[in-house]
Amino acid sequence: MEAVCGAARAGLLRTPHGAVETPTFMPVGTKGAVKGLSPRDLAEIGAGIVLGNTYHLYLRPGAEVVREAGGLHEFTGWSGPMLTDSGGYQVFSLARIRRLSEEGVRFTSVYDGSVHAFTPELAVRVQEALGADVAMVLDECPPAEADRAYHVSSLRRTARWAARCKKAHSRPDQALFGIVQGGLYPDLREESLRRTLELDFDGYAVGGLSVGEPRERMLEILSLLTPRLPEDRPRYFMGIGDPVGILEVIALGVDMFDCVLPTRLARHGTALTSEGRLNLKNARYRRDFGPLDPGCPCEACAGFSRAYLAHLLRENELLGHRLVSLHNVRFVTELCRSARREILAGTYAAWMRGWISRYTAARSG
Amino acid sequence: MEAVCGAARAGLLRTPHGAVETPTFMPVGTKGAVKGLSPRDLAEIGAGIVLGNTYHLYLRPGAEVVREAGGLHEFTGWSGPMLTDSGGYQVFSLARIRRLSEEGVRFTSVYDGSVHAFTPELAVRVQEALGADVAMVLDECPPAEADRAYHVSSLRRTARWAARCKKAHSRPDQALFGIVQGGLYPDLREESLRRTLELDFDGYAVGGLSVGEPRERMLEILSLLTPRLPEDRPRYFMGIGDPVGILEVIALGVDMFDCVLPTRLARHGTALTSEGRLNLKNARYRRDFGPLDPGCPCEACAGFSRAYLAHLLRENELLGHRLVSLHNVRFVTELCRSARREILAGTYAAWMRGWISRYTAARSG
Repeated sequence: MEAVCGAARAGLLRTPHGAVETPTFMPVGTKGAVKGLSPRDLAEIGAGIVLGNTYHLYLRPGAEVVREAGGLHEFTGWSGPMLTDSGGYQVFSLARIRRLSEEGVRFTSVYDGSVHAFTPELAVRVQEALGADVAMVLDECPPAEADRAYHVSSLRRTARWAARCKKAHSRPDQALFGIVQGGLYPDLREESLRRTLELDFDGYAVGGLSVGEPRERMLEILSLLTPRLPEDRPRYFMGIGDPVGILEVIALGVDMFDCVLPTRLARHGTALTSEGRLNLKNARYRRDFGPLDPGCPCEACAGFSRAYLAHLLRENELLGHRLVSLHNVRFVTELCRSARREILAGTYAAWMRGWISRYTAARSG
Repeated sequence: MEAVCGAARAGLLRTPHGAVETPTFMPVGTKGAVKGLSPRDLAEIGAGIVLGNTYHLYLRPGAEVVREAGGLHEFTGWSGPMLTDSGGYQVFSLARIRRLSEEGVRFTSVYDGSVHAFTPELAVRVQEALGADVAMVLDECPPAEADRAYHVSSLRRTARWAARCKKAHSRPDQALFGIVQGGLYPDLREESLRRTLELDFDGYAVGGLSVGEPRERMLEILSLLTPRLPEDRPRYFMGIGDPVGILEVIALGVDMFDCVLPTRLARHGTALTSEGRLNLKNARYRRDFGPLDPGCPCEACAGFSRAYLAHLLRENELLGHRLVSLHNVRFVTELCRSARREILAGTYAAWMRGWISRYTAARSG
């Protein structure tokens, strides 16, 4: 850890493919590509670590193809640090039919309805074949409507799966992170935390939050956990990508996070800017010939006007999706860099309050 | 003209936005963007002159918006030479309802069914607002089933429209090209040629070919026309983009051509390579970890494998569309550069025969 400011941390995540300054946002390369962006684009905007989805890559093109290619780095052309999730989240959110047992989970492919089974051991084996720098244990992210009894049995099974993942994991050049579940029950979160910590992982993730609960509840649960996580291990909050949320979880001591939000918003026509969120399909931008975000040096802002980007997005042109995705990913990446500077300067909390109040005040469409 | 080799020509098209070495392929920026490619991409692959579609830009975002932006160069960020078509081809091929009269043509927008009317004067006014370096006269490209009588009256009306376009045209910094029509009737082509030449345009296009007729018929008609076009004016063959066709029209003395083929093929998964056309969705490429086109230095070939590109295309990933589009446009651009070198060296005909025989022999899928 280089510096702590309140609970916020500035650190360095060392991997076989380079070190990543934290806090860091991980753009999501769902199917082996961050939608619309090339590795060169990602390098230019200063992305630190990219996430790959094991569920999708296992089904298409298949882990064997990626392994034969020399691993996910070689296959995708991204030579920087990379993390793969375990596939669990997609199995539980995308699959239409599934059977969950102590052994693992059976599910149908979202692509062709074919039936597959994931076990903790297979999730590790697949991730070892993909060869990212960081792998995740297979966990269950329980459905939103699950009751307390379900959460109890789920978190305990997830803990047993985590132990099996740890046992199955054999690549010394790949870190393995555990995942804390437990829903919105403070005592269950504590139990899950304790069981996960006992297994001594290289890093710890918090899962099952930012899934629809009020933001205050999310932060409350998170704030119970981060003080009890070991200081010397990276902390990964799964699935947050809106600028305000990013700053709030950083404030509580999170080092890494991921979300498809910046690229998904872009494809739907929304840009994240220093003037707040802009819906570029709004009629007001048809004749706005100024830059997307004044002061931003990215390809979208330096080379084009809001009017042009708005035209491309309205016409569903690939170039519009790419340019605004590029800008949005850069925006959150740069936000993390600013957060890091403020943590190092010891001024994070005040800076964050000011930033959020400017950003939300300007959020006008 | 710098050099002539047989009928093939190596020249220089001078425009207010720079000179273009010919023969040159014009990538099509249908709606103000070559699908998936940025101006930086186009500059990197050495594209010389980009085409914009007046029909689309007139309807979306509207010529006034483009004019207010400072013209199509300023709006799209492409600072090199640019040509706009007149909109005629799309009016006659895309519009569902239309009424054609001496005055002009009424049509319904492909976007929203709204009714519009193009006249020669409006086609010129719109193109002057767009501000490309080269504008085209409004012409009719008669339907494939049109008989001789239709072609006679159509080419004469097109000639009268051409005269009105010439009269209406007022931008001294914009060239205006005439268009020869006349279907597959040699005598009608000759009549159209004579009427168009009388008007003394800055350049001459051949339209209404490469629309489904046998390639031999197309070349036969073209070969009647090119010897009678003035040597000191650029010649533009409208709508050809396959490598063999490009070389064949160059051989007959054409300087410029355009087509959506390279980018459209890319989006459908087909790459143009020195080994012929490759359908990357073919199962054989799933585990082909070699480069798309060995020896090609473009971003797609230098950074990725066939297996990865094939995966992206199968998954309909934006990045796959962009990378293969980039490669295909570079491939035809580079082919034109090679053709130019061979013309300058006086070895075009033999080189072309060898190239075509290698390309077609290799075309294996």
